[in-house]
Amino acid sequence: MRNYIAPLRDMKFVLKDLLDVEQKYQGYAKFADKVSMDIMEQYLEVAADFCQNELLPINAIGDEQGCRLENGVVTTPDGFKAAYDKYVELGFTSLTGDEQYGGQGFPTLYRIAISEIITATNWSWGMYPGLSHGAMRTLEHHGTDQQKQKFLVPLIAGRWTGTMCLTESHAGSDLGLIRTKAVPNSDGSYSISGEKIFISAGEHDLAENIVHIVLARLPDAPAGTKGISLFIVPKYNLDEAGNVASRNGVVCSAIEHKMGIHGNATCVLNFENAKGFLIGPENRGLNCMFTFMNSARIGTAIQGLAAAESSYQGALAYAKDRLAMRSLEGAQAPNQPADPIIVHPAVRNMLLTQKVFAEGSRALAYYLATYADIAEATDNPEEKKAAENRLALLTPIAKALMTETGVEAAKHGMQVFGGHGYIAEHGMEQIARDARIASLYEGTTEIQSIDLLARKVLGSKLSLLTALTDEIQGYVQENQQHAQFSQQVEQVRQLTEQWLTLTQTIQAQAQSSANEIGAASVDYLFFSGYVVSAYLWLKMAVTAQQKIEAGDSDPFYAAKIKTAQFFFARILPRTTTHIANIQAGGESLFLLTPEEFKFD
Amino acid sequence: MRNYIAPLRDMKFVLKDLLDVEQKYQGYAKFADKVSMDIMEQYLEVAADFCQNELLPINAIGDEQGCRLENGVVTTPDGFKAAYDKYVELGFTSLTGDEQYGGQGFPTLYRIAISEIITATNWSWGMYPGLSHGAMRTLEHHGTDQQKQKFLVPLIAGRWTGTMCLTESHAGSDLGLIRTKAVPNSDGSYSISGEKIFISAGEHDLAENIVHIVLARLPDAPAGTKGISLFIVPKYNLDEAGNVASRNGVVCSAIEHKMGIHGNATCVLNFENAKGFLIGPENRGLNCMFTFMNSARIGTAIQGLAAAESSYQGALAYAKDRLAMRSLEGAQAPNQPADPIIVHPAVRNMLLTQKVFAEGSRALAYYLATYADIAEATDNPEEKKAAENRLALLTPIAKALMTETGVEAAKHGMQVFGGHGYIAEHGMEQIARDARIASLYEGTTEIQSIDLLARKVLGSKLSLLTALTDEIQGYVQENQQHAQFSQQVEQVRQLTEQWLTLTQTIQAQAQSSANEIGAASVDYLFFSGYVVSAYLWLKMAVTAQQKIEAGDSDPFYAAKIKTAQFFFARILPRTTTHIANIQAGGESLFLLTPEEFKFD
Repeated sequence: MRNYIAPLRDMKFVLKDLLDVEQKYQGYAKFADKVSMDIMEQYLEVAADFCQNELLPINAIGDEQGCRLENGVVTTPDGFKAAYDKYVELGFTSLTGDEQYGGQGFPTLYRIAISEIITATNWSWGMYPGLSHGAMRTLEHHGTDQQKQKFLVPLIAGRWTGTMCLTESHAGSDLGLIRTKAVPNSDGSYSISGEKIFISAGEHDLAENIVHIVLARLPDAPAGTKGISLFIVPKYNLDEAGNVASRNGVVCSAIEHKMGIHGNATCVLNFENAKGFLIGPENRGLNCMFTFMNSARIGTAIQGLAAAESSYQGALAYAKDRLAMRSLEGAQAPNQPADPIIVHPAVRNMLLTQKVFAEGSRALAYYLATYADIAEATDNPEEKKAAENRLALLTPIAKALMTETGVEAAKHGMQVFGGHGYIAEHGMEQIARDARIASLYEGTTEIQSIDLLARKVLGSKLSLLTALTDEIQGYVQENQQHAQFSQQVEQVRQLTEQWLTLTQTIQAQAQSSANEIGAASVDYLFFSGYVVSAYLWLKMAVTAQQKIEAGDSDPFYAAKIKTAQFFFARILPRTTTHIANIQAGGESLFLLTPEEFKFD
Repeated sequence: MRNYIAPLRDMKFVLKDLLDVEQKYQGYAKFADKVSMDIMEQYLEVAADFCQNELLPINAIGDEQGCRLENGVVTTPDGFKAAYDKYVELGFTSLTGDEQYGGQGFPTLYRIAISEIITATNWSWGMYPGLSHGAMRTLEHHGTDQQKQKFLVPLIAGRWTGTMCLTESHAGSDLGLIRTKAVPNSDGSYSISGEKIFISAGEHDLAENIVHIVLARLPDAPAGTKGISLFIVPKYNLDEAGNVASRNGVVCSAIEHKMGIHGNATCVLNFENAKGFLIGPENRGLNCMFTFMNSARIGTAIQGLAAAESSYQGALAYAKDRLAMRSLEGAQAPNQPADPIIVHPAVRNMLLTQKVFAEGSRALAYYLATYADIAEATDNPEEKKAAENRLALLTPIAKALMTETGVEAAKHGMQVFGGHGYIAEHGMEQIARDARIASLYEGTTEIQSIDLLARKVLGSKLSLLTALTDEIQGYVQENQQHAQFSQQVEQVRQLTEQWLTLTQTIQAQAQSSANEIGAASVDYLFFSGYVVSAYLWLKMAVTAQQKIEAGDSDPFYAAKIKTAQFFFARILPRTTTHIANIQAGGESLFLLTPEEFKFD
């Protein structure tokens, strides 16, 4: 079985030392009595215990067995149902739910932290409650009170689960193309007909009902994205009392054979006059969906973080144990037939890369989550707007960067194992296969990059960007004379300045061709991601140094500083290639006609 | 089924226009009557036909079914045996074999070109004849005439296949640790006992016998790499006439469950007093093995190329067909509900990256293969040495660069497909899973990088490197005033100069710590690889331009130039990050103690 222990020490460092969330959340009535280090640590420990003991042991089983579909019924892998029951019993499904409907009202931050541990121990399993969360958020924000009583309450209680039904076989990123139809019935409900694909957790045996949130078109709807509405379509219709009654017209006709996440059922769902209920205003479904999509994108970012952490832990244990060759500096373990491979620089480079991805992503995720919580908790409209803007800017960065670095970390994890990394029993290749989905679903990396550059940065006339660069430069100014890190401070200062210059370069290039935006966007996203990471790594190093100077003798802090030094020395130089690519412009992408791409 | 047509047009470009191999090989008696464009084209066409019609249709089947082990007997997937018989019938097993023993005596170049097509259509299947080739080469170089008559003849004929048995569970990269024993028998044979793992094609139902080439230790052997000898161990013992007789003491006790290459049986082989025959001198097995290992590394490099090409072709077809969104410049296909995704810059960037990896790798592979052939064919000891040196320098570069870019290209292939890339039926995820092995086996990327920097470059006091940089700078000088490509010529000039400077930087750093070599080596390898690629892309552009100026109207040449422009604009900037990482040095890799890597 795989090696994994929840990184509680580092989580606490980010929560307490870096972000001081106890203090930060005190100012908001909604969370004042919810957020304390004691409560958080307790929840994290319960989650760690559950995940390590219940989810990790069934992770490889889930990969091996996958889901089975027979006559529309999906059977999940052995142990998945029992683990789900335990999860419900522990109260995790209601963690962040609205207190009016049975939830515990905790902030997003808690869910973010816990879902890393869930995903690191069993990605596929974690998607079942993960999808429910998306459905709950949508209902909380856009449902009527009656809809919440009927559908949200059992979701929060964990009796039912939820899905998000967006994609159709011809319509993935481009939701404007969807064809599923919703015809109004005389009783105020709608008849939904169409086929949805890639519906994660779309059918299973974990819960007694499934609440599908479905995008469909009304008969008179305008074409494209402005004619899409959102519907609640339960697997089972409800009786007057809200209990499960007759089967609704939605059937799972197939499950996909995939590279990974075998334990999660990715379903083709056929809706045939299924009874549905409009949620939110007519033709505004896509706007309602954005609530869910942002939260789903953060959730996916966390999956990338989980892959980085779990592959790191696997590789680290192996690197300490496996003997091969001698250090170039001479034998380090002279009593053994060879040295443990952690002595070799190339192995260390991979381990440290995994480590900075995991820890950097964790810091970014929690930093981002505080804005999600503030946006929800504050009464001050200006503060709310600022928090929403920061969230809007950072979400595509976090989603793409954290999933791509998760995939990269998983690759390193296999590589540290050498040939053994390719063999199923060590678990490293499963992490790589599972992780690969994260840069594809919830908007590919390329979609995120256009969202960042075209919508968020250029669309706001740079105001979202400068709000952040101002914050960073403020921090830089405070620390310009830092005794230990002045060099890193200067790196952050220069790169932040360059962030603005590069943005202006692209703006200028885009005057001649709009394609320049798409030609630059992926490099721009990674550049942005590494700069934000540099800011957070600087903060982490400065914070750790303060703890040491204040007399804290926990060796964790010295290690954190050393890790930051690696980030600045060996990861941040990646920005140079991204800069060069952006400066090169997009001309070379458009020289070839489609016919010229290939000659037989 | 997957979309694939052998890229014969590009192959011919490299063979004829870029390398002019017909002319080049004329000077060597061994190949003078073997190499002509006519013969090569004919072989390539037969191979393309066989691979597209026989291997491609059973590729997904092989992935799905995998191999089955029952009572020591391995059953390969449906169709594998029939395809193997056809392959033997077409004479491909004897292609490069020694004419004295039934071979056709063609140069390595042919095998290289054909094995790309085999691997692109069915990687797992291709490994069976691929491994035979390694065994044949070893026998040709180190076997006695009697051994060749007994074992090489049936291998060349394809009646038997071969394996290479190196790895043991505790000894992968570090072969000095192997424990398998060889005890001399009174009849001159040896009794081999031990366990070997990761033996590709170690047991199967394709051929009537298997010739295992096994590394083992004699009773009085010195410790480490200097005490390893090489043995021939057939699966079936032979009678006096050389026919298959009784079963030998070697049994397949398990096959591995792997991320990919499911159709190839990766075996645990147990040798228990198996009858073996010493090949080459006692205790010099590792030296004999190097003959095979270099050839195997080139073979693995080709696998990376095959992954780049096949994932490119899959993604290209999809990108022309799939509709999503409008171009940022406005509708390009106004009669359709959305534009084909090939209009989007980020998609083009991925396709072009795959394209330059495939075409650049093909040029590098053939360029490298000519040196392998010259080293074997020349009577001039100086020319032989120079060719061997070039081969020694370029082999680790080609192996690591081509496999890593193959893995990257396969990732882009999935990404172009979006969520559909993750689904088995489209075949893109299989390419990614299969391709992943190539940067692990036959020496990981990290092992190649140490081989390049420590052994080949520094170990030769830079003489292997300067021989190549002199060639490149000579070419640069000839083309300094090039009307179209003077800018690219200057890029190549600068980077080639920097190659030497960087090498000296590392030499200087290594004065203070030998670890600096390992800290730089992976970046150094990629830097080197991109510079060699830049040299070849420049040559390809210049050559294509010459064809156009000479009045050749084939649109292929204009496309080649445009592809080269993309390489220089958007791929070559990757060198900047590698330079920065090398210059940063290795200090930050060694700050953390093993204990400091993780706190719970």
